[in-house]
Amino acid sequence: MEITLTSPLDMHLHVRDGEMLKLVAPLSARDFAGAVIMPNLVPPVTDDQALQAYTKRVLEASCSEHFAPLMTLFFRNYTEAELLAALSIPGFFGIKLYPAGVTTNSDSGVSSWQMAEPTLRCMEALGIPLLVHGESHGFVMDREEQFLPIYRHLAEQFPKLSICMEHITTVAALHLLDEYENLCATITLHHLEFTLDDLLGGAMKPHLFCKPVAKRSEDREALLHAALSGHPRVMFGSDSAPHPLHKKECCGCAAGVFSAPVALPALAKIFAEHGAADKLQAFVSGNACHRYNLTPPLKKVTLRDTAMQVPVIYRGYGQSVVPLHTEEQLPWSVCAVQE
Amino acid sequence: MEITLTSPLDMHLHVRDGEMLKLVAPLSARDFAGAVIMPNLVPPVTDDQALQAYTKRVLEASCSEHFAPLMTLFFRNYTEAELLAALSIPGFFGIKLYPAGVTTNSDSGVSSWQMAEPTLRCMEALGIPLLVHGESHGFVMDREEQFLPIYRHLAEQFPKLSICMEHITTVAALHLLDEYENLCATITLHHLEFTLDDLLGGAMKPHLFCKPVAKRSEDREALLHAALSGHPRVMFGSDSAPHPLHKKECCGCAAGVFSAPVALPALAKIFAEHGAADKLQAFVSGNACHRYNLTPPLKKVTLRDTAMQVPVIYRGYGQSVVPLHTEEQLPWSVCAVQE
Repeated sequence: MEITLTSPLDMHLHVRDGEMLKLVAPLSARDFAGAVIMPNLVPPVTDDQALQAYTKRVLEASCSEHFAPLMTLFFRNYTEAELLAALSIPGFFGIKLYPAGVTTNSDSGVSSWQMAEPTLRCMEALGIPLLVHGESHGFVMDREEQFLPIYRHLAEQFPKLSICMEHITTVAALHLLDEYENLCATITLHHLEFTLDDLLGGAMKPHLFCKPVAKRSEDREALLHAALSGHPRVMFGSDSAPHPLHKKECCGCAAGVFSAPVALPALAKIFAEHGAADKLQAFVSGNACHRYNLTPPLKKVTLRDTAMQVPVIYRGYGQSVVPLHTEEQLPWSVCAVQE
Repeated sequence: MEITLTSPLDMHLHVRDGEMLKLVAPLSARDFAGAVIMPNLVPPVTDDQALQAYTKRVLEASCSEHFAPLMTLFFRNYTEAELLAALSIPGFFGIKLYPAGVTTNSDSGVSSWQMAEPTLRCMEALGIPLLVHGESHGFVMDREEQFLPIYRHLAEQFPKLSICMEHITTVAALHLLDEYENLCATITLHHLEFTLDDLLGGAMKPHLFCKPVAKRSEDREALLHAALSGHPRVMFGSDSAPHPLHKKECCGCAAGVFSAPVALPALAKIFAEHGAADKLQAFVSGNACHRYNLTPPLKKVTLRDTAMQVPVIYRGYGQSVVPLHTEEQLPWSVCAVQE
């Protein structure tokens, strides 16, 4: 059995910087035609110069002419002139908003919604998408649900602003999504596969630890249903977030699952097992192209139901990163990429 | 300020075997007059010979004449003759029941409650306490609550059996405790101190990972209230469960918090901060002595509000174990032990 995807996109990707960027960017550029590149570097990407320079580094590191990084700024209060400057930079895609301190390198995130309103108004007028890490500072299992009233407020106050609920993990988020046309959502591979039980129901698995944490099986099933049924405002975003091995298997494990190199084979497995192979194109590209009016580089990626042996670890440039499904055999693999 | 405790007891303790036993047993024997020693070795302690031999090894390793190990058998279907044989062994205390597969070395635990009834009936007649790891095989955050109907069933079916709900973690368990006089409960130090947020709300902390996992803040507060108010059927049981460092900071972290060496100073801090220093004696000894009619070795342990620098790691006999509060300074310390 084969599935051929046209120009798959990863709508939420962390490729970091420096040597880690060099290791991981080619792994995404190999399988995907484009990816939304998150701006939470240290310091974060918050002006057109940093954006331009980071775009250049990502392009160089990805080693591919058929991979389009969709670049983002880290949300702060921007003037209209600053937003126009960003729009003039090729590859600029949107602005990622982190409430202060909720995940890796988000300390300089938003702490006042009222202060943010002029920038959001300007983004709405200029057609710049807002991408949101939607978690409160409450109890870890409740953070996404507690954030939903803020999504509701944004959706109502800025009806023309395109708002993406990034990496949603709950039934409740899906219900809200259905209420507002100006909301869309990304879903990760790992939240389609795992619940909190997989993280700590048996032995605790640091390589499955991410923010937001995986929730209950009813949440996972609802996410699966949305993806498999071809929900038009749901898009694949891996949230692949590499950390060096020594920051995962240690006394204070960093949040992030490194899924980019196994994403398409693992998604093919899920969709094929559920008899929904015909819906994979919409989830990994069609819905995003439609939503954002994207025309990514043409790339045909063919997956076949022959096994992929997942490496124990990806090494290079002095970096070591353990992938999702480390050491496992996935029943699907990428068998051809035509550019 | 000083608190002097008479014969403190740890009513739930894992000291393991072999070299690990030699490292950790003296740390408990130093501060406590006795401890209930859990039987989940590999293979588990399931007959009088194994019990006798393990008792001897624990006594030798603890290097103290003023420390009484209260020994347990691992629950299986025992005959009356087998239970009588156990009762004839000095130090035998009770039987620990694990539902099959719920925690470290519990694979041979109970899988059928009906099969267990004759043994439970016999234990009831002979006055042998039943100690239970009360978790279902459901979603990790629900496991204790899902197990409560089994506690209720046991409490009603065996009204003279002393049943201890080990290491309880929820408001719901406390409510059940109050319904039946033949139920009692142990509470750990770490469940008085931490919630799931401490385990994975920020970076994920493998050294705080245990079964049952820590729950919500309202659960923690209810446990605190029970301990601080001197609830007569609530007893301290550390569930201190050492694992070598390489089984904690790794890709599949074992469940268990090694708290024994810091337990009394950390408890003194909690009770003193809440103005309940006068209730600590009941929690760490009085309630257990009363419940089980125990007369532990006389040992006066004096705690003072002078700092204890917690070691980064305890090493010895080729073992390395990271303690709870590693590298921290606790404001209380054991300043004198009189035997």
